[in-house]
Amino acid sequence: MTLKDYAALVEEKLEALLPEAEKKTPAIGEMPWLLQNAMRYSLMAGGKRLRPAMLLACADMLGVPRKEAMLPACALEMIHTYSLIHDDLPGMDNDTLRRGRPTNHVVFGEGQAILAGDGLLSLAMQLLIENALAHPGNQAGETRAMNEIIRGAGVLGMVGGQCMDLYCERERVMDEDMLSYIHMNKTARMLTSPLLAAAALAGYGEDSPQWRALTAYGVNFGLLFQAVDDILDVTGDEKTLGKSTGKDAAEGKLTYVTLYGLEGAREKAAALARQAENSLDVFGEKAAFFRDLLASMENRVS
Amino acid sequence: MTLKDYAALVEEKLEALLPEAEKKTPAIGEMPWLLQNAMRYSLMAGGKRLRPAMLLACADMLGVPRKEAMLPACALEMIHTYSLIHDDLPGMDNDTLRRGRPTNHVVFGEGQAILAGDGLLSLAMQLLIENALAHPGNQAGETRAMNEIIRGAGVLGMVGGQCMDLYCERERVMDEDMLSYIHMNKTARMLTSPLLAAAALAGYGEDSPQWRALTAYGVNFGLLFQAVDDILDVTGDEKTLGKSTGKDAAEGKLTYVTLYGLEGAREKAAALARQAENSLDVFGEKAAFFRDLLASMENRVS
Repeated sequence: MTLKDYAALVEEKLEALLPEAEKKTPAIGEMPWLLQNAMRYSLMAGGKRLRPAMLLACADMLGVPRKEAMLPACALEMIHTYSLIHDDLPGMDNDTLRRGRPTNHVVFGEGQAILAGDGLLSLAMQLLIENALAHPGNQAGETRAMNEIIRGAGVLGMVGGQCMDLYCERERVMDEDMLSYIHMNKTARMLTSPLLAAAALAGYGEDSPQWRALTAYGVNFGLLFQAVDDILDVTGDEKTLGKSTGKDAAEGKLTYVTLYGLEGAREKAAALARQAENSLDVFGEKAAFFRDLLASMENRVS
Repeated sequence: MTLKDYAALVEEKLEALLPEAEKKTPAIGEMPWLLQNAMRYSLMAGGKRLRPAMLLACADMLGVPRKEAMLPACALEMIHTYSLIHDDLPGMDNDTLRRGRPTNHVVFGEGQAILAGDGLLSLAMQLLIENALAHPGNQAGETRAMNEIIRGAGVLGMVGGQCMDLYCERERVMDEDMLSYIHMNKTARMLTSPLLAAAALAGYGEDSPQWRALTAYGVNFGLLFQAVDDILDVTGDEKTLGKSTGKDAAEGKLTYVTLYGLEGAREKAAALARQAENSLDVFGEKAAFFRDLLASMENRVS
């Protein structure tokens, strides 16, 4: 299965979880139509579904039933979407467009956009817990999978990275340690969580070669993802990523390119791709999806 | 033990979980000092710790070990605090003071305040999961407790209630069904979750008399809490609640008093207190804490 195949599965499940809602006074304990539609607006805006696809592909590789992996996959996409909604707010990046459409707060207002983000994070956790309750035979694996996801997304992961990203931008701080922290925490952690969540569901311990290999792949792939993003921001060869044409560089943001130059960033990217690829050896032929993912990422800047 | 006794235990644990942090570039996977201090600023601002105290008192009443109940209690307070930080933002209520101190976004800026809220919700979930991992002998109870908390706090509970509250305020909607939805979802659910989380940890099923009694107490107490808040907003007899002296009423907000008048609201409050008290019969003498809580609530408006 390709990234597109997995993305289609995720799309279908997300559509079922959060359909368009009609306006009516909600019954007690029901989700209001407005919250549902605001969450849906950003969730169904046509992302690549990279994180959930990685979780499903890793689950397939490790023999986790698709049925058990689907809600965690959807939860990851909800967490990713909540972070984008909050990131776009006037108090953060103040972006009015994302993927060619007005951002959430432009359509629903700032207050409702804050709540749509809060709601998506809450719903993600609710789905993870529902999944755990539905698979009582794998309680330990389910709880460990949740743990990986919230640690990747929370104060030790993505939220921590966003905090330092915002701080560095406002205070004009630019140093290599901070760059490294931000890329690891804001970007790479959320691209490692899908793999470790699948490994937890499969019952692999943190000392297993598989766990270590997936951690290495996730981190290197995550940093490659960031490097490619930074390179495309400057070269503008492609418009599929959120921000292109030198906006980050022009704003004096800390990026791979501002720190290492364009050629240096390309070299870094190539080295990261090789390291990620090497870590897949333990999975042999079964890791084809993850090798293809590296190749498609590298192709975008070569 | 009294509310103050429980609050002191919670205070001590929160202080240990989120101490003041010194400024330094964070190591990979570490929480940044700035995020920690922004979260701490609002978390340690001297609330009554009502929700965590209710969880601890209910755990004592049902025989749940204090050690197992403490992190869920702290998680509840973090969720409550995150909701206050986001509620105070310019895009929501735009409040600059809370409990006599500048609100989070006034001190740390809007972006960091959004992240402090996101961080507290994430940390709450992380602590709940850590607690589950630490008590493998009670995995089902732990997972069900998490479920109660996230359902009370999320799209089916508090976030849903906040969404309709904001909507009704902006659109000047005032009707009894909406009032009921908002009070149940925004206020009463988060005062019921502590009890049901403790009941889940104790192993009570949803069909047990204890579960039903705690649900009834939580809902009636929660609505009483809201009625008292609304009455004090108008009479201004007491300043211990966040907003007093008629601000809500003056803004045309939907309250017990605007809907039923002052005397009608007082009658509602008395009836709610009686219903809550009756539901405690199943626990006999052990429910003294919860009887005292009703009495102290009623005293504030009599």
